[in-house]
Order: sequence, then C-alpha cells, then structure tokens
Amino acid sequence: MKIILDVMGGDNPASEFVKGAVLAHDRFIAENCDAEIILCGNERVIREALQRLRRSADMFAIVHAEDYVTMEDDPMSIVQIHKDSSMSRALKYVSDGKADACVSAGNTGALFTGATLIERRIRGVRRAALAMVLPYECPVLALDCGANVSVTVEYLVQFAYLGSVYMEKVMGVEKPRIGLLNNGAEAHKGTALYVETNKMLREASDLNFIGNVEAKDVQFNKCDVLVTDGFTGNIMLKSCEGISKFIMDKINNELFGGIGGKLSSLIRRSEVAKILKTFDVTEYGGAPFLGLAKPVIKAHGNSDANAVMNAVMQAVKYVDTGVIEYIGACADRFPKIVVNDKEK
Amino acid sequence: MKIILDVMGGDNPASEFVKGAVLAHDRFIAENCDAEIILCGNERVIREALQRLRRSADMFAIVHAEDYVTMEDDPMSIVQIHKDSSMSRALKYVSDGKADACVSAGNTGALFTGATLIERRIRGVRRAALAMVLPYECPVLALDCGANVSVTVEYLVQFAYLGSVYMEKVMGVEKPRIGLLNNGAEAHKGTALYVETNKMLREASDLNFIGNVEAKDVQFNKCDVLVTDGFTGNIMLKSCEGISKFIMDKINNELFGGIGGKLSSLIRRSEVAKILKTFDVTEYGGAPFLGLAKPVIKAHGNSDANAVMNAVMQAVKYVDTGVIEYIGACADRFPKIVVNDKEK
Repeated sequence: MKIILDVMGGDNPASEFVKGAVLAHDRFIAENCDAEIILCGNERVIREALQRLRRSADMFAIVHAEDYVTMEDDPMSIVQIHKDSSMSRALKYVSDGKADACVSAGNTGALFTGATLIERRIRGVRRAALAMVLPYECPVLALDCGANVSVTVEYLVQFAYLGSVYMEKVMGVEKPRIGLLNNGAEAHKGTALYVETNKMLREASDLNFIGNVEAKDVQFNKCDVLVTDGFTGNIMLKSCEGISKFIMDKINNELFGGIGGKLSSLIRRSEVAKILKTFDVTEYGGAPFLGLAKPVIKAHGNSDANAVMNAVMQAVKYVDTGVIEYIGACADRFPKIVVNDKEK
Repeated sequence: MKIILDVMGGDNPASEFVKGAVLAHDRFIAENCDAEIILCGNERVIREALQRLRRSADMFAIVHAEDYVTMEDDPMSIVQIHKDSSMSRALKYVSDGKADACVSAGNTGALFTGATLIERRIRGVRRAALAMVLPYECPVLALDCGANVSVTVEYLVQFAYLGSVYMEKVMGVEKPRIGLLNNGAEAHKGTALYVETNKMLREASDLNFIGNVEAKDVQFNKCDVLVTDGFTGNIMLKSCEGISKFIMDKINNELFGGIGGKLSSLIRRSEVAKILKTFDVTEYGGAPFLGLAKPVIKAHGNSDANAVMNAVMQAVKYVDTGVIEYIGACADRFPKIVVNDKEK
C-alpha cells in the first residue's frame, strides 16, 4: 500500500512533515506493516530535512512540487492557480492509481474541493463529509466536521447514512445510534433546516435515529454517530479544543505553579497532561472525507510530527477497512430529497 | 429594589428556588443591599418550603400561580394556554411596575417570547439577545446564547452594538473589541449570512470590530464581545459544559481513583474542582436579555439554590448599572438593514 503525504500547506514547516513520515516509516517496520510513504512537496527541502534527521535522502519516493496552497487561499484555487501545488499533485497521484491514499494538513476547503473534483464522489453520494472519531466515553463519529459549511436537509440525512455504515463496518458497532446535534433534545428545536432534518431522519426506518443530541451530552455515550453541518461541527470541536487548552493552562498555573508549586513533586504533571491529551485534536489522527471514491485523509492544520504519523497510520487503516467499497455497495439506497431543499 | 423570582419551571423543584431566595435574602442583609425578593409560584408549596427551612412563612411577598411552563412547552404558550403561569405573572409584575426585574430558570424560548411581548423591546432594537459573560482569561460577553435560533444579518449586527454598550457601560471596557464567532479567521469564512455580517461589521465605523474569531480562541483574550446566533452560541456553550464535566470525571477517576487513589491525600480534590467550576454555567449567575425595555434575567435550566442566588444578585447588579437606559439613549443609531435579509 502506498500513502502520499503532502508535506506543505500545514501550519508547520515541511521538515515537521518529513519527521512525521520518518516516524510512520519506523512504525511500519516495527509493526510489520506492508506500506510505504511517498512525499509530495519541494524536493530540495525534503532532502535537506532528511539529511538533518540523519536519514538517507532516498528513503522515500518524492513527487516534486514548488507551489503549495496556503490557509488563506480560496478553495477553488486548487484546480485553478494552484493546480500544480503539492496538494493537487498528491490528489492526482491517487486518482491516477499511483498511490492508494492521500494525507494533507492543508487548507480544509481547498482539500475538500480538490478531493471532490479530482477523486470524485461515490455514485449516489451528494456531498462527502469530513468525519472525525471523537475519543469520548464511547467513541462518537462526528460528521461533518468542517467541509460543508452550508448544507441541505438531503446532505445531513446522507451524512447519517455515511456515518452509520462507517461505524458498523469499521468500528464494529451494531445498529449505530444516530444523533442530530441540536440546541435542544425536543424534535421542534433548532433552525427550520434542523427541524426538517429531524423529521426526515425519524422517517428513515433503516437508520437507528435516536433524536436530537445536545452538545453537553455528546461526551456521555448518547450516540455513535453525530450528524451536523460543517459550520456547527467546527464550532463544537474548536470549543472543546479551546476549553481543554484553557483548563490545561489553569491546572498548570494553579496546581503546579505558585503556592501549589510544591505539589509538582508529589503528583506528576504527566498524569494531568495525559488526560487532557484526550482532547487534543492533533492526537486524533486524521479525518477521512467519507463519501469520496478514493481515500483522502485530512490532518489537523497545526499537526506536528506525531500528528502526521497518526494521520498516516489512519490512512493505512482506512484503506484496509474497505469502507469505500461498503459505502459504494449501499449508496444507491441513500435518500434523494429534492423538495424545497436549498443550501442554508 | 424588588426582584420577582419565578420558582417554577426550572429542572429543580420549587423548594430549591425558595432556598436560593433565602440565600440571596441573607446576602442582601450581609452586604447591606436595599433589595427585596418576591416569589412567584404555588403559594402552598412556597410556604411549605420556607417552613422546612425553618424560616418565617411571611419572609417574602408571594404572587400565587398554580400553572407553570414546562421545558417542552411551545414558546408561544406563555401568552396562550400558560398566560396565568408563574413565568407569565412574574413578567407582568415587572411590566406593571410592581417589580424592577424578573428572574426565571424556565423554558428559554417561552421566557424570551414572553419577555419580548410583555416587557417589549427598547425602541430601535429588532431582537433582544441572551447575553452571557464568560469567565475566561479576559471576560467575554457572548450573545446570542440561545434565544434567537434563526437570525438575520441585521440582528447579528445589532447584537454587536448591544454587546458593545454593555461591555463599555457595565464592565468598563474602553472600545470593546467585537469578534464574530466563525469557522475561520478569514473574512470569507462561514455561511453566506456570516460572510455578509462580517462585511457589515467592517463597515460599522463606530464599532471596534476585530474580525472573525474561532471557537478555540475565544478563551484567550481575543475579543470582549462575541457575536453569534442563538443556535451556534448554544452549541459553543454546551460543548464547553460537556467537555469540562468530562474532564472533571476523568480527573476524579484517573487522578484520585484506582492506583492514583493515594494521591488524593496529597493534593486536594477541591483545587481541581475549583478550577473546573470556572466552566460550570450554573456559577455564571443569570444572563440578561439585552435589548428589552425591562430587566429579565434567565437562570440556567438546572440551577440549584446557589445558582438561583447568583442570578438574583445578577438581576440587582443589572438594574443598578442602568444599562437599559444607556441602550435606550443610543439605539436610534443602530443600523437598520432591510435588503435581502430574511431569517436563516
């Protein structure tokens, strides 16, 4: 299996991605995993980074690209002015069959647009969704986590189906419980779009829809799949990220610093750090775009080498599960909703 | 000053509200505060609760109401089948000038609808907003926190003005920094509604608009006022509530329980509990509906006696600040936006 890694366009320099690739490579060997990594980006920079890591300049195949997509670029730029960028070339390598999966930490909108246009969607799927497994009391697959900022009822209902297949086939959850993220548990809660989506999901007899789920209950084993639009999903995840960092800072200052400083010798900071790491999205590995015809994994924008390694491992796992084939086999029965359904 | 407290319709029984009123009453005395509390609800239940607390049955004036609004009731029910409920009667007491402020922990939608129809809005204000001060590194006033699930560009722009006046006049912040909660910092991020709102806020030269703010940055002194719609605001707050409870549980189990149990004698649980209490919304006191012509304070649905006391104290403070008069004096210059602006 071949994984192509876009080493440019994340918040960190390309050398951090090369380091992540080296970590993943070493893990492949340790775990006897038959996979290899192709690096996509500026060849000179990559070789220099390998040299600084005292690794052979030839340990990875390299696909050279001078250009790259920045976080500020328009999503469509990936097929226009940045059509020769590292992200675009990595995606094309997969669509050409020269690699099995693509990993990038770059601009989410550009990666989503590029992946949709270059890899295409599975037949019957209206929109792919960025799907992330949240490591709570019981793992929750949240989708969409930021790709589709504007959605329709149809997109949301299809996200429920995509998530249900993923949790059943990849995570082995029988009849996954589908929840709709909303501002209240009652069916009449939320915007008109959410009220209508709740109604359509209740009518979908082949889904195990359990109703609306509030953001304060997501952590506590309420559902296996959490359906949301990309705007709201982003706010939920980033709120969790911000608050856990804020708590970490407070614990470090108030429990370990100042008058509590003496306690630092009694309890290990690492105990607290370990707990709070649960909420560090860079630890989650990458998130696949569910519904695409080829595996594309989005790593967190500020991924460090460890996060890059996790995302590469996630790509290997994603290819291995064959979930794309599972979705392909059942996407024909995904509902198509056309009445009064425009993006909101 | 007279504060009328709706003792029914929260998640906890009326007796908990009576207990909260007693706590607030005792604090008034301790702090030499010239305020009194009127209780609104079932008179028999209130007198029984006072008796159980070994307090005089006559320590509070009581406005009797048999009926109450439940969390499941439709918002409009407060002026229809529940027009004689404790919530409705408490609101009318204020509009009739018999009390200076109303506090309720009941159904947010019903309280918002009732408050808008009974107290009315300040002239020039299109929609009142539920405004909450978040106790982060630097306090952030977030609005709307759940009253207006569907909004227009005009509502959001007006929320920015309401919040700016509040932070300047009540919290003493000079030129409050206004941020727009969004899924990315760039001006083109978000739904069409948010892109347009960002544009209008940039054009509002009398506001100190600093641009979009991501949910992961709200905690870290990025802005003084955070503008959002009620749906998104609810998701943000409830995400923080859920994740902080989840962290609390994990710390209790992993740091104090099991093999780490022996540590419990070395560090006090209360240190951690104190930190995490920062994120307990029941500690925040109540949230005012900014933009109404009379003070109405929403307490958290699951308020305990302590939270009720905090909400009553917040009501006293809110009346004292005279913020309603400040808003009244400048609401005429709030922008009115009519083009292409329908609720989304």
